[in-house]
Amino acid sequence: MFHHPGAMGDSDLRSRVVLESIRPAVDGGRYPIKRTLHEPVEVSVQMFADGHDRVAGDLCFAGTEHDDPLRVPLRKVTGDLHCAVFVPDALGIQRYWIEAWIDRWATWCDGSAKKAAAGVDIAVELQEGMAMLRDASVRAAPQHRAALDRAAAALKEPGAAHRLELVLGPHIAELMHAASERRHATRSEAHEVWVEPERARFCAWYELFPRSASPDPARPGTLQDVTRRLEYVAELGFDTVYLPPVHPIGRTKRKGPNNALVAAPEDPGSPWAIGSAEGGHLALHPELGTWEDFRALVERAESLNLHVALDVAFQCSPDHPWVHEHPEWFRHRPDGSIHTAENPPKRYEDIYPLDFESPDAGELWNALLNVFTFWIERGVRSFRVDNPHTKSFRFWAWVIRRIKEMHPDVIFLSEAFARPNVARHLAKSGFTQSYGYFPWKNGRGEIEEYFREITRPEVLDYMRTSSWTNTPDILTEYLQWGGRPAAVIRAILAATLSASWGVYGPAFELVDVRPRQAGSEEYLDSEKYQVRHWNLNASHSLAPLLKRLNEIRRTYPAFHSDRTLEFLPASDPAVVAHRKSGGGRTLVTVVSVDPHGVRETELELPFVDGTRPYQVHDLLSDERYLWTGQRQRLRLDPASMPARVFVIREEHRSESDFEYWT
Amino acid sequence: MFHHPGAMGDSDLRSRVVLESIRPAVDGGRYPIKRTLHEPVEVSVQMFADGHDRVAGDLCFAGTEHDDPLRVPLRKVTGDLHCAVFVPDALGIQRYWIEAWIDRWATWCDGSAKKAAAGVDIAVELQEGMAMLRDASVRAAPQHRAALDRAAAALKEPGAAHRLELVLGPHIAELMHAASERRHATRSEAHEVWVEPERARFCAWYELFPRSASPDPARPGTLQDVTRRLEYVAELGFDTVYLPPVHPIGRTKRKGPNNALVAAPEDPGSPWAIGSAEGGHLALHPELGTWEDFRALVERAESLNLHVALDVAFQCSPDHPWVHEHPEWFRHRPDGSIHTAENPPKRYEDIYPLDFESPDAGELWNALLNVFTFWIERGVRSFRVDNPHTKSFRFWAWVIRRIKEMHPDVIFLSEAFARPNVARHLAKSGFTQSYGYFPWKNGRGEIEEYFREITRPEVLDYMRTSSWTNTPDILTEYLQWGGRPAAVIRAILAATLSASWGVYGPAFELVDVRPRQAGSEEYLDSEKYQVRHWNLNASHSLAPLLKRLNEIRRTYPAFHSDRTLEFLPASDPAVVAHRKSGGGRTLVTVVSVDPHGVRETELELPFVDGTRPYQVHDLLSDERYLWTGQRQRLRLDPASMPARVFVIREEHRSESDFEYWT
Repeated sequence: MFHHPGAMGDSDLRSRVVLESIRPAVDGGRYPIKRTLHEPVEVSVQMFADGHDRVAGDLCFAGTEHDDPLRVPLRKVTGDLHCAVFVPDALGIQRYWIEAWIDRWATWCDGSAKKAAAGVDIAVELQEGMAMLRDASVRAAPQHRAALDRAAAALKEPGAAHRLELVLGPHIAELMHAASERRHATRSEAHEVWVEPERARFCAWYELFPRSASPDPARPGTLQDVTRRLEYVAELGFDTVYLPPVHPIGRTKRKGPNNALVAAPEDPGSPWAIGSAEGGHLALHPELGTWEDFRALVERAESLNLHVALDVAFQCSPDHPWVHEHPEWFRHRPDGSIHTAENPPKRYEDIYPLDFESPDAGELWNALLNVFTFWIERGVRSFRVDNPHTKSFRFWAWVIRRIKEMHPDVIFLSEAFARPNVARHLAKSGFTQSYGYFPWKNGRGEIEEYFREITRPEVLDYMRTSSWTNTPDILTEYLQWGGRPAAVIRAILAATLSASWGVYGPAFELVDVRPRQAGSEEYLDSEKYQVRHWNLNASHSLAPLLKRLNEIRRTYPAFHSDRTLEFLPASDPAVVAHRKSGGGRTLVTVVSVDPHGVRETELELPFVDGTRPYQVHDLLSDERYLWTGQRQRLRLDPASMPARVFVIREEHRSESDFEYWT
Repeated sequence: MFHHPGAMGDSDLRSRVVLESIRPAVDGGRYPIKRTLHEPVEVSVQMFADGHDRVAGDLCFAGTEHDDPLRVPLRKVTGDLHCAVFVPDALGIQRYWIEAWIDRWATWCDGSAKKAAAGVDIAVELQEGMAMLRDASVRAAPQHRAALDRAAAALKEPGAAHRLELVLGPHIAELMHAASERRHATRSEAHEVWVEPERARFCAWYELFPRSASPDPARPGTLQDVTRRLEYVAELGFDTVYLPPVHPIGRTKRKGPNNALVAAPEDPGSPWAIGSAEGGHLALHPELGTWEDFRALVERAESLNLHVALDVAFQCSPDHPWVHEHPEWFRHRPDGSIHTAENPPKRYEDIYPLDFESPDAGELWNALLNVFTFWIERGVRSFRVDNPHTKSFRFWAWVIRRIKEMHPDVIFLSEAFARPNVARHLAKSGFTQSYGYFPWKNGRGEIEEYFREITRPEVLDYMRTSSWTNTPDILTEYLQWGGRPAAVIRAILAATLSASWGVYGPAFELVDVRPRQAGSEEYLDSEKYQVRHWNLNASHSLAPLLKRLNEIRRTYPAFHSDRTLEFLPASDPAVVAHRKSGGGRTLVTVVSVDPHGVRETELELPFVDGTRPYQVHDLLSDERYLWTGQRQRLRLDPASMPARVFVIREEHRSESDFEYWT
């Protein structure tokens, strides 16, 4: 009738320490947290035991739960809250957990000191203390033994009760912690941290269509043209060049310019209608070039410190080889035809979605994994994933984990312009970065609300948002109506608010803002359906601004992370002001979101010591000021420059810095 | 190199529905939620899938995860949020979980309707719909088949595209849900719900010392005296009579009256110093009576609808048989002596704590479990556990679960006047009720803040707080200084704010408020150390008030739960006003917390329709009023009655209720 206590399935029923509310943790530890290499992980835990005994513990981290972990002793913050920090020093999937135990030494120190102070006889306590010190000495590292033995000896001497302080200090406490037996330790569940390369957090994306990269308006662009254009992208300071799909394009139901339902024979089609007789996701479009060209492109990019990002769109044109080789990977209708993509009543007849419920799902998943590894083997380390929210979430969790296990330096950008639950779930499932709703946040209120939400630590722990000024699908009305000043404003906001930002160029820097029709967010003559040619040397190009923004971002660590973002009060409701800090510098960015009128605003800087002058350097105009006080008036003119990016320098020299002082 | 997707350890890699944020859940499902029999459990979940497909799901509940569950279809609330309710109909540990799948039928209905409306040819869609209806008919319950077959036939008829509405309605949708194949369903983790008897939630405790129950001042009380006193307790309307430990009391280091360090030979000692040569936790104190007396007590209680609650204090006097029989259950010091309980520099030498880290912990745990089952077999179904926070939390989780598995009607009251983390962890570990900090919440602000915190649904899901006016350890300064009005105020607050309340009597109703010394919360001449005699017929007794309060509590379901508690604005800061509702009635309680002066206050009733008169009945004075408007003035006089308990009746008769109307 009675079950043995061991039946509760716990290795050590004598464990007395309780661990609760371990942070960071995504959904109670169901999903990994994310960090980049050397980005500290501050872990906190509510830790307590029954009775009056003191508790101690370590934050442990290791590659797997079974490895011998690195240990950082937990420090008490307040009440039951304890904290410790570790700094991941290798890429990949790692684990952290807490181990905690009754701290017999601290309990003894506490009790003995109080009893001695109250004049209680502590002869037996002294014996206990000695025994603990001697036991610890046996377990201790060789260099610690002498100190522990000396402490034990001190407790043996007559009058030791009055010289307890010899053993009560933090030095002995530290040695005792290190040599702790950790008897009946409670061990928390292990939590995963995915340690990713720095560009997972700090990244500047530049999207371009290879077929529009030709300097010769008489012919479409090729991979060789892209290779030549890399220098331009690098000069602008971007670190990742992202190419829409480079695969053969289907002919069946091919779309014409401006999404026309019927294409002329010479129309190139949409690169997202992947697959033709020439091949599918593992092939290069013959008109773009050869494998040798692709290799040369990747090598040139590397020499310029650029990453090449490919688009991964798991869908097939009706001409994709898989349609014939693997009919079971597609859903069929009662008349034998294949289900096309649809958003009723619309049907997208040039696209067949893959059926993630296929009876052959295992083979399908492996084939898709193979698409990634195929391109990884060809030097690609960054992927922009098209519409991941229309493919199985479970598949993404599986495939990204598999790739991370093999290639922890690979990153994935999720293009899920879907509702927050969906976008967030994809981030939890492993996507490195996620396109955000930035394009549609144009007023101060909505900008502040949105960025406050996505930069909460609990969100940043799993979702890193990338803010894009535009994409081939998103030419916002703000850009359409606001002209060049609007583009300037959006570039400065994206580059300063988000450690990861991106532009789709050259449309962006050349301020191509004509929509296909009023009310549409599609570009007129979109590169999605036709070849375009761009004059990169146009005098109105925003290239110098983009270059300056990327320079500023690289120079100032404040812009390498979103954790410190804080909005500042500005009297004009059309002015967004924010502060970021890092590397010992505070950066204050002030942007008018009114592309039409001059704005004058009072800016509040509540964090400066308003009683002393401080130096302010506007990195956009290169002007320098000496300010006093926490309030400053600014004038922002969209015709010249609607923004400031200030470095605040509060270091004050005083008479004591002068060389003859002392 | 490639792992088969199956290696992710999931039974169905084709599952496409994501389940997040299942509520209620304590610490993400680590601990059980608590309900009483027939108390509804409203479960919500964020449920969604990739793409445009519709999702459907069931809330499932069953005794174990492997049982065939009862199913309640989830209803969409808003966005991805879905809800369903189940009503537990059996005591014990049960499980609930979510199963969800792609709702092919709803997806088809949506798409086909939109396409038909847009004039798209849906011939193939009609074939798909027919096939789905026919498949479902095969799986459906016999009584549903005809309707499904008729719907399928309707889709075959010419012109069906224009009569789609025949199959789109909620009736077919319901049949299709019931007959759903639940293909590739996603199943959430199972969450536990502990279903307990109603008194786990709604309970009135009365504590009394058996040895002070004698009607004859010349001799101490016995179990027979307690049996005779049960009628008094039942008359006052309490449902549980709780007895401090009834075991033999140790002689070694026995405490004298008022906690004197040395006891005289005739001093009875503290009942919590358990164990002597006569026995330990499984024995009756010989002076209290025999097993026959105990049986008679339990039977008499049952006949009066009273539960007998025993005190469980897992500690031993130095004379407890376990000290000699199981020395390994205690911690020893280097000099061979046993560690006494201590709170340095104090040592409690009449008490040995048990060592939950004993090498023999398994045997110890079973022995303690046996203490519970021993008394359960003797008719005890309620336990008040002394200082559970000084014993291993893991032990409590284990022992309470074991008992709940065998005797789901047993309840446990946790006496953990410890910091919130500790008290809450004990509740999560399985304790049915917990003493709260109510005794120390005497001002309006602290009362409101405290009760708002403990009645948040996330807290109520695992912790039910019992509010006590006093205990043998807690005679608050508020009671000491406030005299009889203070006692009246505290009784009314406890009885109305908390579905579970308790008093330690007869000290409470006889307004014994003399402390052992100024600044102490201990009673002078406390029953903990000596026998007392009480004149239950004293004219100043609060017995009539307690009786009325318990009557009101029984009559009005509003007082049977804390879920509806809401505070109301009152202009006087010394007036607490709250509202509870249930069983179709709204109860408004107004209490002045000033035991000395008359208070006049304006009360706000924002929930009434202020434009029409409504009936108000004060259950304490039995006065009735007709009020109009949302603001009322009240006068509360501590000399007569510092409180009102109003039933609000808003039912309005109108001319249409008159019998000749129509």
